[in-house]
Amino acid sequence: MDTLQNAKIAVIGSGAVGCYYGGMLLQAGCDVRFLMRADLRTVQERGLAIQTRGETLCLKPVQAFGSTEEIGPCDLVIVALKATANSALETLLPPLIGPGTALLTLQNGLGNEEFLGERWGTERVMGGLCFVCLNRTSPGVIEHYDHGTLSIGEFRRSVSPRVRAVAEAFRRGGVEANPVENLVTERWRKLLWNIPFNGLSIVADGATVADILADEGLRTQARDLMSEVLDAAHRLGHDIPDSFADYQIERSWSMGPYKPSSMIDWQMGRPVEVEAIWGEPWRQGTNAGAAMPRLETVYRLLQRATAGR
Amino acid sequence: MDTLQNAKIAVIGSGAVGCYYGGMLLQAGCDVRFLMRADLRTVQERGLAIQTRGETLCLKPVQAFGSTEEIGPCDLVIVALKATANSALETLLPPLIGPGTALLTLQNGLGNEEFLGERWGTERVMGGLCFVCLNRTSPGVIEHYDHGTLSIGEFRRSVSPRVRAVAEAFRRGGVEANPVENLVTERWRKLLWNIPFNGLSIVADGATVADILADEGLRTQARDLMSEVLDAAHRLGHDIPDSFADYQIERSWSMGPYKPSSMIDWQMGRPVEVEAIWGEPWRQGTNAGAAMPRLETVYRLLQRATAGR
Repeated sequence: MDTLQNAKIAVIGSGAVGCYYGGMLLQAGCDVRFLMRADLRTVQERGLAIQTRGETLCLKPVQAFGSTEEIGPCDLVIVALKATANSALETLLPPLIGPGTALLTLQNGLGNEEFLGERWGTERVMGGLCFVCLNRTSPGVIEHYDHGTLSIGEFRRSVSPRVRAVAEAFRRGGVEANPVENLVTERWRKLLWNIPFNGLSIVADGATVADILADEGLRTQARDLMSEVLDAAHRLGHDIPDSFADYQIERSWSMGPYKPSSMIDWQMGRPVEVEAIWGEPWRQGTNAGAAMPRLETVYRLLQRATAGR
Repeated sequence: MDTLQNAKIAVIGSGAVGCYYGGMLLQAGCDVRFLMRADLRTVQERGLAIQTRGETLCLKPVQAFGSTEEIGPCDLVIVALKATANSALETLLPPLIGPGTALLTLQNGLGNEEFLGERWGTERVMGGLCFVCLNRTSPGVIEHYDHGTLSIGEFRRSVSPRVRAVAEAFRRGGVEANPVENLVTERWRKLLWNIPFNGLSIVADGATVADILADEGLRTQARDLMSEVLDAAHRLGHDIPDSFADYQIERSWSMGPYKPSSMIDWQMGRPVEVEAIWGEPWRQGTNAGAAMPRLETVYRLLQRATAGR
């Protein structure tokens, strides 16, 4: 798979992330097949519409399927389900997997590469971090508010030709995609922001980024949570400078009353990726000897706040 | 003031605590004068009614006044305002204070004896801890659900004759009142329960004591918060055995779906004593070198949850 030009690609999880990034590969000329449930008929008939700042990109026809059996073995499977739905992959993925199938998870937080690797082999697994603001506004219609950068890496290995090929295909579709040497380090860098801001936005009952920063107590909590995450990341061998935390606080001021995605999920009554974003980092960090009492408190409150979803 | 038989007593703050404990002194035959606002006319006309398990104690007449100027200098002033209203004491107390006036605060948490002592002299100040479930159900009507024990001590001094006299008067009125040698130690013992259970009940969005205990994550948080409070108390010289924390968790199981008083205040939109119960213990503990990250997180979330009240 040195190029995706002739590759058969499946996208599992056709929410905003799956439709957007799958759509970008379609735009790049790739053979992309979407597993869809609720939106299946609409997308088969009307294709996908991706709206960016008033401009609409219409993709049609779109190969949408109701089961992975219909899709069959692929060269690349992109996993864009919520991490909370991972157990569904046990039955969804097998029909897609042949001897050389690669897996790319675009999911949030920690534990998703491990989940795929344990079941289908670590050597298949790549991961990607999406820095993007998206919303699925109606069946087949994705609102793309901002950004879109994708960082792609191998799981526990260096950048490979297939990582470069995937990044190259995304770039052809218009996504700023970059291979990264240490995927898990990148995940910890992203968690450094997501853990405090996504977490506090829920446990402080709907506080936006601006609310958190304007409240000195919460801002201090956010910074102190970052220190706990940094300590854990360092103990796990990830080289992230301490100054990155202050930088993350600084850059957040420009975000204004931004609602972190987890807060929107929580407000809409949808599942929140509590284990991937808070539970797994807390477990890995404390197992490595880090003290993470603030994270544990936030994690336990989040478990409670989202129980039963 | 070796006996309260001929003492003139004022009660400032005529919510449930002030009416109940003031009413018990009235019942004991003491000269008790209540400062009242909203309930003034009703209590002047109908007196106080204290309902305990179906039995109603009617106290009439009751000396109720609309200002402390009308009451004038007293031998004992009982402060039963919410700690959040302490600034009102600056104008309310001076008319009540003569050369020998003693002050007894029945308020929650830390900092109230200091507040009184800094303004009117430490030597005047006694404190009491109320272990009681009360609710003011309508003007002049107090529902007394359970308990009622009062622990009374001098602030920063040993038990004195006046402490014994006050306890004796309460006992005559039917309150199980006990002099305590180390008032502040008793406050920390009470905080050991109030900090986790009152705090988590709010930040976990309405969790009762039973909810907190049934959720393993929250129960662990409660116990870990207790460890932080114990460490702070020990550093501040208070002799509380570690086993007291496990005992407090154990005894809580029998409370069932009990709603801590702060949670009721929060749900009713009333002020919550965030500084007295969480802020001041956190400040005193961290100043003494204790690490209290969980308490700080809960404290900051509570500040946010009750902002603007």
